[in-house]
Amino acid sequence: MKSALSKIKQIKPLIHHITNWVTIYDCANVTRTFGALPVMAHAPEEVTDMVKLSSALVLNIGTLTTEIIHSMIIAAKVANIHKIPIVLDIVGVGATPFRDKMAEEIINSAEITVIKGNYSEISKLAGENVITKGVEATAINSNPIESVKCLATSKKCTIVMTGKEDIISDGKRVFIVKNGHEYMGAIVGTGCMASSVIGLFAAINSDYCDAAKDALCYFEIAGQLAAENVKGLGSFKVQLYDEITNLSDDIVEKMINIEIK
Amino acid sequence: MKSALSKIKQIKPLIHHITNWVTIYDCANVTRTFGALPVMAHAPEEVTDMVKLSSALVLNIGTLTTEIIHSMIIAAKVANIHKIPIVLDIVGVGATPFRDKMAEEIINSAEITVIKGNYSEISKLAGENVITKGVEATAINSNPIESVKCLATSKKCTIVMTGKEDIISDGKRVFIVKNGHEYMGAIVGTGCMASSVIGLFAAINSDYCDAAKDALCYFEIAGQLAAENVKGLGSFKVQLYDEITNLSDDIVEKMINIEIK
Amino acid sequence: MKSALSKIKQIKPLIHHITNWVTIYDCANVTRTFGALPVMAHAPEEVTDMVKLSSALVLNIGTLTTEIIHSMIIAAKVANIHKIPIVLDIVGVGATPFRDKMAEEIINSAEITVIKGNYSEISKLAGENVITKGVEATAINSNPIESVKCLATSKKCTIVMTGKEDIISDGKRVFIVKNGHEYMGAIVGTGCMASSVIGLFAAINSDYCDAAKDALCYFEIAGQLAAENVKGLGSFKVQLYDEITNLSDDIVEKMINIEIK
Repeated sequence: MKSALSKIKQIKPLIHHITNWVTIYDCANVTRTFGALPVMAHAPEEVTDMVKLSSALVLNIGTLTTEIIHSMIIAAKVANIHKIPIVLDIVGVGATPFRDKMAEEIINSAEITVIKGNYSEISKLAGENVITKGVEATAINSNPIESVKCLATSKKCTIVMTGKEDIISDGKRVFIVKNGHEYMGAIVGTGCMASSVIGLFAAINSDYCDAAKDALCYFEIAGQLAAENVKGLGSFKVQLYDEITNLSDDIVEKMINIEIK
Repeated sequence: MKSALSKIKQIKPLIHHITNWVTIYDCANVTRTFGALPVMAHAPEEVTDMVKLSSALVLNIGTLTTEIIHSMIIAAKVANIHKIPIVLDIVGVGATPFRDKMAEEIINSAEITVIKGNYSEISKLAGENVITKGVEATAINSNPIESVKCLATSKKCTIVMTGKEDIISDGKRVFIVKNGHEYMGAIVGTGCMASSVIGLFAAINSDYCDAAKDALCYFEIAGQLAAENVKGLGSFKVQLYDEITNLSDDIVEKMINIEIK
Repeated sequence: MKSALSKIKQIKPLIHHITNWVTIYDCANVTRTFGALPVMAHAPEEVTDMVKLSSALVLNIGTLTTEIIHSMIIAAKVANIHKIPIVLDIVGVGATPFRDKMAEEIINSAEITVIKGNYSEISKLAGENVITKGVEATAINSNPIESVKCLATSKKCTIVMTGKEDIISDGKRVFIVKNGHEYMGAIVGTGCMASSVIGLFAAINSDYCDAAKDALCYFEIAGQLAAENVKGLGSFKVQLYDEITNLSDDIVEKMINIEIK
């Protein structure tokens, strides 16, 4: 969508997050820097009311507990009733049986719009025999495109598999996003931030596979620009926010590097 | 108070926070950067002991749960006994009934020294029929000054309503702080940080309405200085901390821009 | 160990943290910036499985609750069975009886490899009559070296006492690290980050006293380099990450400033 960024800044959609305690600030701040409004709220007594105010729900299981998963399920069911898109980041699936089980529980409790993970996490969800080293992508998937496409069909949603190249599919279309920079994987938080960005693009574009593709292009082009002339990973993160501040639909259109299969 | 900053750096007051998980780092770090000592502790078994060591208590309901509110109420009651000032940031009041109820519960359980919120939040507390979009100020208050003044009188405390201009009143005096920069509202965390700064100024000045006014002036002048020549919102936040590091009572005296009603 | 940094970047050890909500991002990010892999997970249902995947366990009681301590004890016991080194940061010991009791409970439940704290915290653990002002080192210890050495002997582990100079002992050897810069104590998070760095050095060097000494040298030399030409504490933190990015075993060898007793 050519005018995505302008639309976000104009509509200022509210993006409700139930997320992890490690990158919660960055999830909120990237949402705000793109021009949308973040809200982070997880008390079971209020998630129903908060979801109703929102234009997208972003769930991230990074530092999951049974209580948090309980709140996520309440929120996801309400989001379904109100046709609010849900992005689920299955952080660390493949690392512990508890994570695998909790992710399945969320997926079985509500219709998730976009499920996102790295190569290890998505491969595990696709039923492959992989181990995720904590929250990092360490597995090799011999046929990732087919894996993502099939999983999208079986889960009836958009699947996003992030890595050096990102693979996005709704079971019919496949987008491969080749933007980005290796520094993005060298700092903590960019994976979670990407899910927030998918949430805010899904809030303004109901073609969710297209929205996920756009979100990754915009975010990763900002990352590419930020990587120019930085002195280290500290400056890189600061410049990432600076580039998001100054990003325009035109810049993205010029730099976009995707393959459509 | 002309020598506020020097006094903080000399006394190094301990500021006990029970706050949200989004901006907890920034609340601690802004306290430290101003030269005071932050402590964040919420276990019900220890808040009583921690409050007793402190010179101010800052409560922020951003990511509230019933357990956290329970700890806040224990802490607030102890603070009252020991005459330790309490700053309450009513983040998100007006967004969900649970938030409204929990904020009221804290306010009814102890004498709060300073209640702070944005236009939506304070308007909601003042009984107006507004909805807060998550945690953002989206409501319009037709007569904010009167609203703040009346609320201060009825709640018997200092009320701080932040926005493009900040309104501060203890029911008698009204200060309008015109310092600040729009970038401050464009990143996540500055509202919560402002509450921490009010806490540390209240720790050294028992005229709490005056302390709240000073706190906002100092913090927002740092924001104004930081906004000069920044490349984006990433650099802005870094420079905000740099300006706080280098802030002096003299600089503030020169740049202060307030109206007294 | 001369080639520590190269070894970390090559092995990429997984460092499991159960830590506080204030500095959790920085603990993860410093681990990642040094080239290792962080994972933060505290649900009692999964800590056993996560520890088994890890090369070190870092426990930090900054924002402790009884539930978190319970998870830490489960994790510590599993780490012991699998001979995985454990670093315990006793944040705030000496501030409240609850903190003192919980720290003792962890220490009595498992064999801790490295116990780290500031002057107040370690002095309190050594049985001296001190009060920690929140989480800051305010106590004076008349004979810190002897105190650290004796505590290491009685607790049968390595003790790290951080301050202007850091004292490290396993009861036999004593290292005094004189690297570092006062700015490190002027921002929030560097103490917790140091514990993470000790964790990752312990993951590649089973002489844990030596690993703790190396960790502090590497981290504090990065801090020294970062302090050159910074404009304030905001830039200092950004540059700290930049210097870690660019740090090499050779630079550290040239700048190292330790005394061995």
